[in-house]
Amino acid sequence: MSAKVLIINGPNLNLLGMREPDIYGHETLADVEALCTARAGALGLVIDFRQSNSEGEIVDWIQDSRATTTGLIVNAGALTHTSVAVLDALLACALPVVEVHLSNIHRREQFRQQSYVSQAAVGMICGFGSQGYEMALDAMARILDQSTES
Amino acid sequence: MSAKVLIINGPNLNLLGMREPDIYGHETLADVEALCTARAGALGLVIDFRQSNSEGEIVDWIQDSRATTTGLIVNAGALTHTSVAVLDALLACALPVVEVHLSNIHRREQFRQQSYVSQAAVGMICGFGSQGYEMALDAMARILDQSTES
Amino acid sequence: MSAKVLIINGPNLNLLGMREPDIYGHETLADVEALCTARAGALGLVIDFRQSNSEGEIVDWIQDSRATTTGLIVNAGALTHTSVAVLDALLACALPVVEVHLSNIHRREQFRQQSYVSQAAVGMICGFGSQGYEMALDAMARILDQSTES
Amino acid sequence: MSAKVLIINGPNLNLLGMREPDIYGHETLADVEALCTARAGALGLVIDFRQSNSEGEIVDWIQDSRATTTGLIVNAGALTHTSVAVLDALLACALPVVEVHLSNIHRREQFRQQSYVSQAAVGMICGFGSQGYEMALDAMARILDQSTES
Amino acid sequence: MSAKVLIINGPNLNLLGMREPDIYGHETLADVEALCTARAGALGLVIDFRQSNSEGEIVDWIQDSRATTTGLIVNAGALTHTSVAVLDALLACALPVVEVHLSNIHRREQFRQQSYVSQAAVGMICGFGSQGYEMALDAMARILDQSTES
Amino acid sequence: MSAKVLIINGPNLNLLGMREPDIYGHETLADVEALCTARAGALGLVIDFRQSNSEGEIVDWIQDSRATTTGLIVNAGALTHTSVAVLDALLACALPVVEVHLSNIHRREQFRQQSYVSQAAVGMICGFGSQGYEMALDAMARILDQSTES
Amino acid sequence: MSAKVLIINGPNLNLLGMREPDIYGHETLADVEALCTARAGALGLVIDFRQSNSEGEIVDWIQDSRATTTGLIVNAGALTHTSVAVLDALLACALPVVEVHLSNIHRREQFRQQSYVSQAAVGMICGFGSQGYEMALDAMARILDQSTES
Amino acid sequence: MSAKVLIINGPNLNLLGMREPDIYGHETLADVEALCTARAGALGLVIDFRQSNSEGEIVDWIQDSRATTTGLIVNAGALTHTSVAVLDALLACALPVVEVHLSNIHRREQFRQQSYVSQAAVGMICGFGSQGYEMALDAMARILDQSTES
Amino acid sequence: MSAKVLIINGPNLNLLGMREPDIYGHETLADVEALCTARAGALGLVIDFRQSNSEGEIVDWIQDSRATTTGLIVNAGALTHTSVAVLDALLACALPVVEVHLSNIHRREQFRQQSYVSQAAVGMICGFGSQGYEMALDAMARILDQSTES
Amino acid sequence: MSAKVLIINGPNLNLLGMREPDIYGHETLADVEALCTARAGALGLVIDFRQSNSEGEIVDWIQDSRATTTGLIVNAGALTHTSVAVLDALLACALPVVEVHLSNIHRREQFRQQSYVSQAAVGMICGFGSQGYEMALDAMARILDQSTES
Amino acid sequence: MSAKVLIINGPNLNLLGMREPDIYGHETLADVEALCTARAGALGLVIDFRQSNSEGEIVDWIQDSRATTTGLIVNAGALTHTSVAVLDALLACALPVVEVHLSNIHRREQFRQQSYVSQAAVGMICGFGSQGYEMALDAMARILDQSTES
Amino acid sequence: MSAKVLIINGPNLNLLGMREPDIYGHETLADVEALCTARAGALGLVIDFRQSNSEGEIVDWIQDSRATTTGLIVNAGALTHTSVAVLDALLACALPVVEVHLSNIHRREQFRQQSYVSQAAVGMICGFGSQGYEMALDAMARILDQSTES
Repeated sequence: MSAKVLIINGPNLNLLGMREPDIYGHETLADVEALCTARAGALGLVIDFRQSNSEGEIVDWIQDSRATTTGLIVNAGALTHTSVAVLDALLACALPVVEVHLSNIHRREQFRQQSYVSQAAVGMICGFGSQGYEMALDAMARILDQSTES
Repeated sequence: MSAKVLIINGPNLNLLGMREPDIYGHETLADVEALCTARAGALGLVIDFRQSNSEGEIVDWIQDSRATTTGLIVNAGALTHTSVAVLDALLACALPVVEVHLSNIHRREQFRQQSYVSQAAVGMICGFGSQGYEMALDAMARILDQSTES
Repeated sequence: MSAKVLIINGPNLNLLGMREPDIYGHETLADVEALCTARAGALGLVIDFRQSNSEGEIVDWIQDSRATTTGLIVNAGALTHTSVAVLDALLACALPVVEVHLSNIHRREQFRQQSYVSQAAVGMICGFGSQGYEMALDAMARILDQSTES
Repeated sequence: MSAKVLIINGPNLNLLGMREPDIYGHETLADVEALCTARAGALGLVIDFRQSNSEGEIVDWIQDSRATTTGLIVNAGALTHTSVAVLDALLACALPVVEVHLSNIHRREQFRQQSYVSQAAVGMICGFGSQGYEMALDAMARILDQSTES
Repeated sequence: MSAKVLIINGPNLNLLGMREPDIYGHETLADVEALCTARAGALGLVIDFRQSNSEGEIVDWIQDSRATTTGLIVNAGALTHTSVAVLDALLACALPVVEVHLSNIHRREQFRQQSYVSQAAVGMICGFGSQGYEMALDAMARILDQSTES
Repeated sequence: MSAKVLIINGPNLNLLGMREPDIYGHETLADVEALCTARAGALGLVIDFRQSNSEGEIVDWIQDSRATTTGLIVNAGALTHTSVAVLDALLACALPVVEVHLSNIHRREQFRQQSYVSQAAVGMICGFGSQGYEMALDAMARILDQSTES
Repeated sequence: MSAKVLIINGPNLNLLGMREPDIYGHETLADVEALCTARAGALGLVIDFRQSNSEGEIVDWIQDSRATTTGLIVNAGALTHTSVAVLDALLACALPVVEVHLSNIHRREQFRQQSYVSQAAVGMICGFGSQGYEMALDAMARILDQSTES
Repeated sequence: MSAKVLIINGPNLNLLGMREPDIYGHETLADVEALCTARAGALGLVIDFRQSNSEGEIVDWIQDSRATTTGLIVNAGALTHTSVAVLDALLACALPVVEVHLSNIHRREQFRQQSYVSQAAVGMICGFGSQGYEMALDAMARILDQSTES
Repeated sequence: MSAKVLIINGPNLNLLGMREPDIYGHETLADVEALCTARAGALGLVIDFRQSNSEGEIVDWIQDSRATTTGLIVNAGALTHTSVAVLDALLACALPVVEVHLSNIHRREQFRQQSYVSQAAVGMICGFGSQGYEMALDAMARILDQSTES
Repeated sequence: MSAKVLIINGPNLNLLGMREPDIYGHETLADVEALCTARAGALGLVIDFRQSNSEGEIVDWIQDSRATTTGLIVNAGALTHTSVAVLDALLACALPVVEVHLSNIHRREQFRQQSYVSQAAVGMICGFGSQGYEMALDAMARILDQSTES
Repeated sequence: MSAKVLIINGPNLNLLGMREPDIYGHETLADVEALCTARAGALGLVIDFRQSNSEGEIVDWIQDSRATTTGLIVNAGALTHTSVAVLDALLACALPVVEVHLSNIHRREQFRQQSYVSQAAVGMICGFGSQGYEMALDAMARILDQSTES
Repeated sequence: MSAKVLIINGPNLNLLGMREPDIYGHETLADVEALCTARAGALGLVIDFRQSNSEGEIVDWIQDSRATTTGLIVNAGALTHTSVAVLDALLACALPVVEVHLSNIHRREQFRQQSYVSQAAVGMICGFGSQGYEMALDAMARILDQSTES
């Protein structure tokens, strides 16, 4: 049976393609989901792709994922920099986490250079736009393979 | 047709008049809304006056305002100081923003002196109680006039 | 008539007993609620025991408690360290607040050592696991007695 | 008899309209004075509108205003960020102070985001160009009304 | 045989009830000792209740307690914030430590918000006046029970 | 021939007795001058007592004092905390300097706790109101005696 | 003709597989090179894979790459955190740069969380061990495609 | 009956005149005591002049002074910069405190520029060597006069 | 017609040669002016050489220079480190600015290492005593040549 | 006659061998004294080996050593990081000081990485357990030889 | 015999004219060398003009210069901000050092505003492009004249 | 067979005895090597004594030492404070490391008080000049004995 990966997108990512395209590019979130679905299929993974503007809802999703999911790909948007609650949910969840950002957060405002999510993540991919999601799926496939093997 | 201005009030502003009156005064939020309605009428503006304790809901409102609104007046309450998500929504929205605070935040606790909202605002008005909302509407009317003219 | 105490549990505390047991212990939140109900009964208090992952919902609960409650016991979880909105609700509420944490937050990561809730609390109890809730009820009973007497 | 408001403009504001127009706009200080005179007239206020490049002179003006003036509107320019002497004069003066800035100082260099004047001001208005002076007069009129009433 | 608990009070706590009663209350240290004796009796514990203004003497007491005591309740007063020697003695001692403060140290001056004692303590209780000592005894009884059981 | 001491008072000290009397007391600057004249007479010193709101004027006075004066008593008011120019003038002047403040600046706002003047002063006297000037004259008399003797 | 990618490995990466395997894994740098050669082949890229312990040599390589290379993949090892010279070389070179780290640098010592390389990089990949290099090649292939197309 | 003033000298002040004379001068502590006795006699005050190297002993002296003394002159030496216990004793004591230092602490190492004693002192005198003690007695005489009068 | 360069000297530079010669050398400001006149003549420039102790006067001079001058050489003395007003005047003036200091400010006290003037200057020359003024004129001649050519 | 070296051990070092052996090793302080006695004998030195938990007593010992001792070896334990009084005593004493620590303090908690003692010490030896005391004696012998020779 | 000046250029300066011309201009390092040779000839100096990307090589050059050189002109490029080794070599060398930078480092990124080289330099020239090297030679000629004379 | 110890000396240590003798003494590095050879002989150790100005070369030496050496004595000179690469090489090498400095780095400039090398060292010896190397060899002999025994 295919492993299931929950892909979580945080606040304002629903505006992708409509918002500050010089930073975030022209693709919409639906485009990103299509890319992910295709890549996941090629990797033998099933994805559940979601977006929310609510910290509480994202915490709920992460908590619920423990029963149904084998890995998490997280682009927490603005919550990356402010939410200890999302970090705690990820730590509690104890599933492998891959962190993604569309832009290279290390080159942006000071407050965007700190990530709570990183404290719970295997690794981070940032700056590659929507391709970063595909890379995250590649990484997740490898992580899941390794944990199956060992 | 009248320009429409969304006036957003953040967490705990629904308690206005009932909470720490030495800081926030005796008027209720309904009083403030009445003041705003009157002033907007005089200025030829239509307002949509809302309050929420939820960051996610406020982000939703800001996102939705892009289609229906010509300007935003924001008193984000406590979220002023903590919410990158509200800032990102305002930046994505790309409408003129006027920031209002009832008290002079520069004279309060250190953590209340920093504002994420300011990074997206034309200007800030603080310390004038409910009159600040009227002043914000005056400013917004002028901003909208100028952008119409040019 | 018995005084009513609202006990608020913040994000991820619903996972208690299932999450990082070396930090948080093996009891579930239901176990904690049972302990609290027993202790409250012995103290002649009625409790309303709740948990939410949503900052907005917790702010709502605190606001509503003004009409129906005589004291608040708050374990705000991750929001302890990030939510000015919860602090403002507690200040606006003006009821006695007792702050509880399962672990000793002073021995954990730097960002967990700062508490906004403390700015509105009579006192803090931390590091004693679920027993901390019982101690908080004991403290609340005394606080309520004193305010009744005086 | 009309209340008299002293409007103080600090260093380099005499260059208004000739200096960095993308930050400060195209109006001259004479234009701003004309706007203020008109608005003051409509509000039943008399204004005394001045500019100086000298901290000592501005301190003198503030001190002298105690005998002759009922309120102060202050755009201290660069002195906003560096002059404890102006702050002390305002504190000693004990008249209501409204702080104005043409630009939104919260979005400029770090050293322009701190204001000593704010420590003595009822409130601050910034980012609305010359209209900010009109708004300051509106606010002052209301403040003077309230202090008359009570 | 009853477990013995050493209760250590640091500098100036001998002035309790005579000093800044708005912060520390009206009870004397003898009142606190009486409360502790009563509570300890009810819990089946024996206490040794002491106070010293000398860091060296407190370090001596902690060191000596290793042979004769099963737990420590510590209100180190001003030494809380300055004494690494007390911390080292507690760490060397390796007995369970419960930290108590009469006032809520998180709401006082910056230098009173840091505690070296916390680095060696199971937990902290602060802000509940003399009742905090009773709560500390309750906590200690439970801690000693658990270590006996396991 | 009597030694001559220049006593310099900085911005806003001309308002003494009229300004924030709970901080600065009820005596006027003329009262302070009278006290100083009397004490100087008793000590065999001649004084030149001045006040200015202008940093440039104070720098001029300090520079000119080199030719005509044997010591400086300086209460630079707000310039204490901001003026490197006054410090440089004092260093260039190379006369003995005694620093005076009416209030205990170590117990006031953070920005009033730093003094540039101290870097050029033999010593500082603060917190004793107008008596501090008399103490400064006493100290100056002794300093001048010692430099005469050696 | 195939695009050529220079892959630069900084100090101590030659010890890979022999050094702290719990952090860096068991593969050797030769293993990583083999992985890269394979992936590059599949992507139609030619690689030049090098390692040096010398900052000067790495700066030379980056400078020389301008003539011969179309992209740079950089794992600068310890120089990531200390070398402005490597950053300047990358900026001068003006080729697309992808930054790779074997471990998740955001979860390590404070001094390893800052990267000068990031200031010149399109994006960063960290925490995925040797797979990170393959992901970097995937990202580079896409970047080169895009710059060819446009 | 004469008012009694306790003069407390902290660690290492017993070495006065024998230690770093370029900083502290050539007079011994006995010389300083003689100066103080003479000046106190002239002022109608009785003094009790003490020195200790022990924080605990100094705290004891301050506590005991409440019953027998009308004012405290404190040169806490090194404890000035490190002892919250001495500060707390002074606050608890609630007598007028005058702080003295032989050297100008504002011109020495960074760690000597901070004083806990200042938080409890009417004022500070520093930099005038042994004369500072005489000045402190003068100031104390005036303070005691004023409190008698009012 | 010769280009005219205004050379501005800030507070205390009139004491040059009389003040701290180990830092500032033995030449007087008149000597420096003579050097500048000679060098300017050789370069075909006319200079206007001034000194003031008043920030306000210097701001005035800079403002007025816009009409009559083609470049500014600025040694703002102590105002270098404290005056945002001088910086704003220089920015408003929009002429080329060369910053000079007699001493190497990077090797002096921390507060002398920061320069507001630098934010408006083409370049800085420091540490070469009076020769620095000649070098500044050389640099200005070249800057004016280039702007004439292009 | 043999030179005499005072070896001072600060708080909690009497517990050596009984306390946290993974940090401090298994030897007792008596073992260390025996090692020191042996080494001192071989070097022709006489030692006086002491331990105290009291800062005041250690200050007394250092002061008294001036008359009777030719060098000091100091392991101030926790007082290393907190005691300006011990530093002042060492500075006043003006004998050669060698600082020793059993553990490598540079690899421990942040607050253990700062040493006041170092400001008065010829050198520091840390991390070599009890052998560090022997090394300190070797160093002291050489220092005393050199000062005898010169 | 002519004095010999070693001119050292640090990492990436060999790319001058090819790299970020808006910051560093269009001249190549060979152009700069030609300018320096011409100016040195006019001043009667001989130069040795070098560039290296290696810190170690630059340290070697500085060390070797002691025997053969009378002065150093240093543009250490990126090593300006990071290399204590270059600073130590300059200090050890004890020859006069003039520091040059093409751009005004005070207006660039925070990490480029700090210079270790300045700690060993007579003075700094920055912001004047290649002309800065000529100015440095002028300054060096004067420095060497003065040291010859005295 | 004798254990072999590599002794590494960093940048500028080749100038020992020729450079700043008040800080570093008059012995040359050859003198130090002779001392080390003698002491090593007495201890039954063989040494390999080297110096380099190049970080890369030192990293190479440390890496190569893994095969041929049983311990490292490191005086990294300026690289102590700046080189993460040297630290990483030492960590990778996993041999016992003893850190030596000629001067007491805790009493020098702020930037010399931090050591990356310490993070990999058993202990540090500083301030004892060339004798520190002998002490380091003594310490290393003991460390190697212990690791042989256990």
